[in-house]
Amino acid sequence: MINVGIVGATGYGGVELVRLLLARDDVNLCKLSSVSFEGKKISEIYPMLYGICDDVLDTQDKVVDACDVVFAALPHGLSQTLAKECIEKGKIFIDLGADFRLEDEETYKKWYGCSFEDKALQDSAIYGLCELNRDKLRGARLIANPGCYPTSIALGLFPALKNKFCSTKGIIIDSKSGATGAGRGLTQTTHFTELNEGFAAYKVGSHRHTPEIEQTLSKMAGEDIAVTFVPHLLPINRGIESTIYADMNPEYTLLQIHDAYVDFYKNEKFVTVMPLGTAANVRNVRMTNQCQISLHEDKHTGRLIISSVIDNMVKGAAGQAIQNMNLALGLPEDRGLPILAPAF
Amino acid sequence: MINVGIVGATGYGGVELVRLLLARDDVNLCKLSSVSFEGKKISEIYPMLYGICDDVLDTQDKVVDACDVVFAALPHGLSQTLAKECIEKGKIFIDLGADFRLEDEETYKKWYGCSFEDKALQDSAIYGLCELNRDKLRGARLIANPGCYPTSIALGLFPALKNKFCSTKGIIIDSKSGATGAGRGLTQTTHFTELNEGFAAYKVGSHRHTPEIEQTLSKMAGEDIAVTFVPHLLPINRGIESTIYADMNPEYTLLQIHDAYVDFYKNEKFVTVMPLGTAANVRNVRMTNQCQISLHEDKHTGRLIISSVIDNMVKGAAGQAIQNMNLALGLPEDRGLPILAPAF
Amino acid sequence: MINVGIVGATGYGGVELVRLLLARDDVNLCKLSSVSFEGKKISEIYPMLYGICDDVLDTQDKVVDACDVVFAALPHGLSQTLAKECIEKGKIFIDLGADFRLEDEETYKKWYGCSFEDKALQDSAIYGLCELNRDKLRGARLIANPGCYPTSIALGLFPALKNKFCSTKGIIIDSKSGATGAGRGLTQTTHFTELNEGFAAYKVGSHRHTPEIEQTLSKMAGEDIAVTFVPHLLPINRGIESTIYADMNPEYTLLQIHDAYVDFYKNEKFVTVMPLGTAANVRNVRMTNQCQISLHEDKHTGRLIISSVIDNMVKGAAGQAIQNMNLALGLPEDRGLPILAPAF
Amino acid sequence: MINVGIVGATGYGGVELVRLLLARDDVNLCKLSSVSFEGKKISEIYPMLYGICDDVLDTQDKVVDACDVVFAALPHGLSQTLAKECIEKGKIFIDLGADFRLEDEETYKKWYGCSFEDKALQDSAIYGLCELNRDKLRGARLIANPGCYPTSIALGLFPALKNKFCSTKGIIIDSKSGATGAGRGLTQTTHFTELNEGFAAYKVGSHRHTPEIEQTLSKMAGEDIAVTFVPHLLPINRGIESTIYADMNPEYTLLQIHDAYVDFYKNEKFVTVMPLGTAANVRNVRMTNQCQISLHEDKHTGRLIISSVIDNMVKGAAGQAIQNMNLALGLPEDRGLPILAPAF
Repeated sequence: MINVGIVGATGYGGVELVRLLLARDDVNLCKLSSVSFEGKKISEIYPMLYGICDDVLDTQDKVVDACDVVFAALPHGLSQTLAKECIEKGKIFIDLGADFRLEDEETYKKWYGCSFEDKALQDSAIYGLCELNRDKLRGARLIANPGCYPTSIALGLFPALKNKFCSTKGIIIDSKSGATGAGRGLTQTTHFTELNEGFAAYKVGSHRHTPEIEQTLSKMAGEDIAVTFVPHLLPINRGIESTIYADMNPEYTLLQIHDAYVDFYKNEKFVTVMPLGTAANVRNVRMTNQCQISLHEDKHTGRLIISSVIDNMVKGAAGQAIQNMNLALGLPEDRGLPILAPAF
Repeated sequence: MINVGIVGATGYGGVELVRLLLARDDVNLCKLSSVSFEGKKISEIYPMLYGICDDVLDTQDKVVDACDVVFAALPHGLSQTLAKECIEKGKIFIDLGADFRLEDEETYKKWYGCSFEDKALQDSAIYGLCELNRDKLRGARLIANPGCYPTSIALGLFPALKNKFCSTKGIIIDSKSGATGAGRGLTQTTHFTELNEGFAAYKVGSHRHTPEIEQTLSKMAGEDIAVTFVPHLLPINRGIESTIYADMNPEYTLLQIHDAYVDFYKNEKFVTVMPLGTAANVRNVRMTNQCQISLHEDKHTGRLIISSVIDNMVKGAAGQAIQNMNLALGLPEDRGLPILAPAF
Repeated sequence: MINVGIVGATGYGGVELVRLLLARDDVNLCKLSSVSFEGKKISEIYPMLYGICDDVLDTQDKVVDACDVVFAALPHGLSQTLAKECIEKGKIFIDLGADFRLEDEETYKKWYGCSFEDKALQDSAIYGLCELNRDKLRGARLIANPGCYPTSIALGLFPALKNKFCSTKGIIIDSKSGATGAGRGLTQTTHFTELNEGFAAYKVGSHRHTPEIEQTLSKMAGEDIAVTFVPHLLPINRGIESTIYADMNPEYTLLQIHDAYVDFYKNEKFVTVMPLGTAANVRNVRMTNQCQISLHEDKHTGRLIISSVIDNMVKGAAGQAIQNMNLALGLPEDRGLPILAPAF
Repeated sequence: MINVGIVGATGYGGVELVRLLLARDDVNLCKLSSVSFEGKKISEIYPMLYGICDDVLDTQDKVVDACDVVFAALPHGLSQTLAKECIEKGKIFIDLGADFRLEDEETYKKWYGCSFEDKALQDSAIYGLCELNRDKLRGARLIANPGCYPTSIALGLFPALKNKFCSTKGIIIDSKSGATGAGRGLTQTTHFTELNEGFAAYKVGSHRHTPEIEQTLSKMAGEDIAVTFVPHLLPINRGIESTIYADMNPEYTLLQIHDAYVDFYKNEKFVTVMPLGTAANVRNVRMTNQCQISLHEDKHTGRLIISSVIDNMVKGAAGQAIQNMNLALGLPEDRGLPILAPAF
């Protein structure tokens, strides 16, 4: 049995971890913490857990003491100290936040306003995009779980960048996310009556995921990549769709590129390249750890258009974190991770 | 391995069976049929199945030949002949339609316009409300899976009727169902733009589930019960909420009734009585085989008010059908049936 | 020109008044107040007003000074003092809150926890259900605008109670409201991800509108009426549907009752009795001041079932308030009040 | 009084015309036609019209006979003959379809599969984007009402192209439309349960609006423009948001461009440039004839990003058609056209 704990269990990332981990018979979900609801049962906050998980929410310290694997789903900036403590105590630490995602401290400072507290610790963190860093993640102790937008985008572009199917210049990414991406905290923007029947871009050209996207794409391409990234908020609960525009390499046909994508991902359990002529839809990956990708071409302008969809709370957060745990512990990578979305 | 087939696999009940059965490692989902899409892959109709289940849809006959357990999700009236054939060939037949639910032929004729083709066969069918007929369902060969509305209502009222916590006269049931209840067939009523932001009652006092509701409640009470039943269509995908109004027996307090409900259902895996002071919500049972019940009292009019929620496609259709299969085969009743809803 | 002001203009009732009053060419919307946003432009809070109404939000006192008609959309309990001041200064005061709706002080204390500050002022208030109190509303100075649920219910039952088409005993009302009914204030219940795809009852048997409903129905029937009232929250923005169950008087047929309803409301601009065989739908009254009513019968239990729909923000709040202003000022009652809902 | 008729009145464009025209006191909506529902009352199809407009749907010929202005909301290809007849009979003909939008016959053939039946008639048609062709539209007899996507895009880019604020090369447009854009016809894609909680691109790089977009942008820029255009389907009823990406001219700052946009549109009643720092939202233009535009810059890639929103059924169809009628008849251009969206 793996003794697992969650710090920040009542946030959306946290409770999604609870849901997925409760389905495991090899995991002992032994301690949950929450600053806001300490002392309450988690089923008081989330009544679907009533009678299934009525654990009392405890402190962060208790989680660290009780568990061998610690997931942290905390506001940005709060994971660095906790990670250090966990690593020193021999725990595996998987951070769902952004504190260990960026390699460059200046970039981190610029976008998040914090410094690296421990440069060596930062250097030891593995960026948990399994499809990119699988080998390093096996046996890893400190894992930075990727952001939701970056996951959808990086998986959509990986084979194209690797094989130079498109130019690395001028990539434009238009992403749309369901409302769980904004978390459990109440805002006017996510008040039902103000999101329902609405749609808008937000943080245009200034979303914090931009440097993470560029860092990952640059690694994939082997050269520096700058992108234009614009997120939008969808009036649905779950799902990210990223439509990616890139100048297509005229040496290849769409069919060749599609074949190469299928081949590239043929051993990946959680990436599916959809048949040509269909378009990826967020509803087909809901509640699953899958990324589905569809490929398109605008012939008259010579553009490759990639649509990549994930469930932002599973492959974009809790599911990928568990995939990382499985890798870190040497377990089958897909254990406990759903791949089949409900049809409705 | 259990060889299972589905007749009518591309309807909503059918594809939900596919989803739930694919998760089982003791089930071989060996044959699917569809009149509308024979010869096509089911993943062409439901792209979330792409790469997971690409079975070609075959004929009803092939399903019968290949399988030991046959689920039928057919339009009303088409199951009787098929059931006869299956039973004669030694198969277990579980009907998600209404052809075997009603005991009285006149009632069946009046509401469905068909006759009983084989009275003995009709008599041999077990009504598959597990919480009511568990003993008869063990080893059963022909099972009539209950309707969605009747399931939510019967489970909500069972302890009250059994223990005379309320009058059997004057029961009123106001139910609301998500749009999957109307099925995959296209209608103006379920066209997105015409259901979204809308809400209305339908088939007021004339819904076909009325005689089934009354038949089950009468059995539970040990006397004839007539109810007023009004369904409404909700602009959501899944879920039924039934608000049930009954004159409360003044010999009991709400607290006593609640305690008795908790006790009555304490061994039921799929029925949860929520704490007093909370209201059952369809979102807390989505994608699960659970029924959640909350109890309320209107003191100044002396009414017991029961809110009962289920996922119409799981406990109200495919999930309960699998629960019935488990019972029929002597397997653990809850095998392969989810109980924890996603938080969002 | 009528000089009109709104106290509490940034709440949902207030901003709906702004929208409807801006369309009038005989109204000078001269002053808006807001405690929360004083000093800001209302178009900063509601960007649809940008370039159309960029008024700076001022204090309550400024509204009173500048206007001849004062609408108040305030939290319960805050209107009594303001009303007194307005009446003393010769203004017309229309209260969208509950402070002047109940005639009995004990009932008010029990449900709202406040006392009547000025009994004579309370006695002078006219309950603004135009279809019931039209004559008293002509020239009225202090008007208590009805609650949203009570409006839908009272209009649905008025002809039946007046003509004894149903028993006054045992009436049950199952209502469902869109999320604007909960207002602009942020709550977990109205957080997009927690209301979307959800549905539940709330305040079962204990909603504050219950005494108002009973007071109005009792007046209509000429005898004391007690009802069971259960509200539910719908995942839509606008609209209330009330399904009303009453024992039908066997001396009448549904056809006769329908004819009588049509006749009763034939001169009402804002009440439409729908044809037999159709069901009232909230979408057909969205953004309008209409109430649509459909009548049904459950023959086998002898029940009259009435479905009554309104837009909770228009006929249930701002629209009815303007209808009241029109009556108070001797203007055509329907001036500036939309009756045609968008088809989608 | 203007005698107006609608051919194809029961489609979504048609019924939106009905709604807007019924609000006019200078319009006599004298005849409506429908092939599908001839002989029925329009209020049987759209119950919100019950008691307000119970006109019986007639034939196309009757519309032509009875009216001076004919709006046609027909499937593509059916307007050419009708337009010829109307023009010959001295009527004003406003086509909501695509038959007269494209100037080049080869392009029309390629995208729509039909020929120009009467080249001179085609040449006489005025493209009804009022902000571009206002002078030609005054007194026009044959007007091609623009498509919904092209309207949102052309208005978003007009000042930029006119003033060379961005490059004319490499423009990418990522658009998202509500479900009314797909019309009243039933499809699996717009079945409630399959669109709700879903989101996907469609017709990637191959949507029929592409040549219309390019034709209009080319006119605005004074040079040939090719764009990449990808539409997506939103699970909302109304609204189009187009996010437009273009290389920004480094000679200008965003502030200068914003000032120029405000100035460019300062006399336009139906185009609003939103303040810098805010993002255009479809909810702020629902039910109105407005286009709202927000401007953004991605400094690190040098891109100008424009978000342009309209209500696809009003400014994108029926509202713009009425704006065109007003111009054709010499009436105030904004008569009868709403500009203020409901707040929720």
